[in-house]
Amino acid sequence: MEIKNDLLLRAATGVTTERVPVWMMRQAGRILPQYRALRAKMGSFKTLVKQPELACEVTIQPIDELAVDGAVIFSDILVISEAMHLDYEIIGGKGVYFPKTVATKQDIDQLEVVNDLEGIAYTIEAIKLVKRELAGKIPVIGFAGCPWTLFAYMTEGKGSKTFSKGRKMLYQAPEMAHELLEMITQSTIFYLKEQIKAGADIVQLFDSHAGMLSPKLFHHFALPYIRKICESITEVPIIVFAKGVGYAIESLNELPCQVLGLDWTMSPQNVRQRIGSSKSLQGNLDPCLLYANPTYIKKATTNMLDAFGYQKHIANLGHGLEPDTPLDNIKCFVDTVKEYQFAVM
Amino acid sequence: MEIKNDLLLRAATGVTTERVPVWMMRQAGRILPQYRALRAKMGSFKTLVKQPELACEVTIQPIDELAVDGAVIFSDILVISEAMHLDYEIIGGKGVYFPKTVATKQDIDQLEVVNDLEGIAYTIEAIKLVKRELAGKIPVIGFAGCPWTLFAYMTEGKGSKTFSKGRKMLYQAPEMAHELLEMITQSTIFYLKEQIKAGADIVQLFDSHAGMLSPKLFHHFALPYIRKICESITEVPIIVFAKGVGYAIESLNELPCQVLGLDWTMSPQNVRQRIGSSKSLQGNLDPCLLYANPTYIKKATTNMLDAFGYQKHIANLGHGLEPDTPLDNIKCFVDTVKEYQFAVM
Repeated sequence: MEIKNDLLLRAATGVTTERVPVWMMRQAGRILPQYRALRAKMGSFKTLVKQPELACEVTIQPIDELAVDGAVIFSDILVISEAMHLDYEIIGGKGVYFPKTVATKQDIDQLEVVNDLEGIAYTIEAIKLVKRELAGKIPVIGFAGCPWTLFAYMTEGKGSKTFSKGRKMLYQAPEMAHELLEMITQSTIFYLKEQIKAGADIVQLFDSHAGMLSPKLFHHFALPYIRKICESITEVPIIVFAKGVGYAIESLNELPCQVLGLDWTMSPQNVRQRIGSSKSLQGNLDPCLLYANPTYIKKATTNMLDAFGYQKHIANLGHGLEPDTPLDNIKCFVDTVKEYQFAVM
Repeated sequence: MEIKNDLLLRAATGVTTERVPVWMMRQAGRILPQYRALRAKMGSFKTLVKQPELACEVTIQPIDELAVDGAVIFSDILVISEAMHLDYEIIGGKGVYFPKTVATKQDIDQLEVVNDLEGIAYTIEAIKLVKRELAGKIPVIGFAGCPWTLFAYMTEGKGSKTFSKGRKMLYQAPEMAHELLEMITQSTIFYLKEQIKAGADIVQLFDSHAGMLSPKLFHHFALPYIRKICESITEVPIIVFAKGVGYAIESLNELPCQVLGLDWTMSPQNVRQRIGSSKSLQGNLDPCLLYANPTYIKKATTNMLDAFGYQKHIANLGHGLEPDTPLDNIKCFVDTVKEYQFAVM
C-alpha cells in the first residue's frame, strides 16, 4: 500500500524531506482526554492493549488530535515477556509488577520462546486494524523492548532505579543470563516480523534501561542482542533507542539500523560530530520541557531542530510523554516542528 | 590532630601516595552483620542516624571490619531537608517517603534555611564522637546532598526513575525553583561548615539525580549551586560526585573542588583524556560487580586501578554498595586495592 505522507520513512532512510517529520513516544495513551474517557469506560491499561479494536482506537486518537507523522501502535514492551509465560500487571500509581520473577535456571526453563501467534495475536491484530483504518495516510510504527530491558524487568519484577537484580545475574550467572537474553531475542525477532507482516512500516527498539549497565556489560549483554535483532529485521527501517548510553554512540552507530534515537541528555551536535552523517537521528526534547509555557516550548523546539540540522532527523522527545502534559503544549511542540522552515532552503 | 593514615587526603589533594586509598559509598550500614544486629536491637534506620552514639558505632564498624582508608559518617542526605522542616520517612522495602512535598510558593515559605544546630546537631555530634574514637587513625569523611538532588526528593516525595515533578517545576516556575535551590544551598554550606568544625577532614557532595537533567537544566539549576558550595567550603578538600552526567565532565572539571567522583558508566581513561591531570578522581567499580566471584572481582578491580593510573586516585565504587553484597566480596575489593603494586614503581 502506498503511503501518502511518507516523511517519516524518508527521514529514516536518509531521503530528502521537505520538512522534519514528528511523532512522540507515548503519544497514544494518557495524555489524551479521549483515551482517559475510553479507559474510564472500558477498564485497565491491559484491557485496552489486549482488545485489538480498542488498541486500534487508542493508536488512532493522536493522529486525529495531533496530526503527527507516524502512528505508533498502542501496546507495551512487556507483551513479549507475557507471551514467554511470565505475566505482568500494571498497578495504578505504582507501575509494572511481576507476580513471579526469573531468578534461577528452573525459572528460565519454564519460559518459552515465542514462535507462534499465541500470546502476541492481540497486538498483531491491532496493527492490521490500524493499517486498514489509516489506509496509507501515514506510516505505522511497530516496536519492541530490547533484550536487556526486558531481562531487567523479568528479573527485578518491577520498576527500579538500579535494576540491580538483573545486573547481579549478569555477573553471577553470565551463561544463564545469555540463555535468557537469547530467548528474548528470538521471541522479539519473531514478534517484529509478525508486526511487519501485519503492516508495521518501521519499528523501534527500546533499550530503556541500557543506562544502568557499565560500558563492559552494555557491550557484552545488551548490544550483541540488539545487533542480532537488527540483522534479522531487514524488511523495514529500524530505530534503536538506547537510553542513557551517550558514551556508546560510536558503538550504536555500527549497528545495521537506520536511525538512532537520542535521549534528552545527549547533544545532537556532539553526536553528529562523533558519528558523522550516515545514520538518521531521532529525538530529543526533554519531555518535562512540555510543562513550560508555549513561548519557551517554541523556542526550545526550534533550537532543537537547528541542532539536528534539516535532514535525516525525526523530531521526537528524548523519552515518553509525561501523562499529565498539557495538551496545548504538546500541540505547540508538534506545530512548531511542522511550521519550521529550513533556514538553508 | 595529626592523621596517621592520610592516604585519602593526599590522593585527594594530588600529593604522591605509596598506594591507592580506598573507601566505599554506603560502607557504613546494611552490608555488615554488626549493623544488622544493632538495627534489629535498636530500631529503624532513622533511629540509628539520630542517636549520635549509635551513628558513631555504625560509622566505625566498617573501619574495624574492612580496614578502609576513610570513615564516612553514617547519616543521610535528607537530614538537611528535615532540618529545613520537610520531614521524611524511610519505609522498609520501599525507600524514602515525604508525607508532605514542595509544590507551591507557600510550601517554600514554610521552609527555613538551616543556620543553627537545631535539626543537624545529631550528625554533628556523631562526627565529634567518631573523630574522638578514631583518634587520628584515618580521615573522617563528611557529606551532603547537592541542591538539585535534595530538590528532586523534596518535590517528588519519594524515589523516582525520572523525578519529573522537580523537572516540571524547573520549567514551569524557574524563579521559585531558584529560590528553593538557594535555600538548600545556604543550608548545606552551614551544615558542611559545622561538619568540618566537628572534625570532618574531607567532604563529599552527592548529586545522585544529576543524570535526570538535560544538559541545559544541569548547567542552569544544578552546577551553579554546586559551585557556590565549593566556593564557600575552603577548609577541607571536596569530592563532587555527580551521577549520570559523563557528558558534563569538562564543566565539572572547572569547579573549585579537588576530586571528581565517577559513576560506573564513565571510563577513567576517557575522563583523563578530556580533563587532563589537574583534579584527582574517585571511583568507579560497578557495585553489582561485587556479586561476581572473587577471581573476577580481583581482575576487574586491578583493571580499574590500571585505568585510573597510580596517583590522584581514590578507589571506590561507582555508586553505593548494594545491601546484600557478600562481605567476602567486599573484602576482596578492598584487599585487591591495598595489595595492588604500581607497575611503574
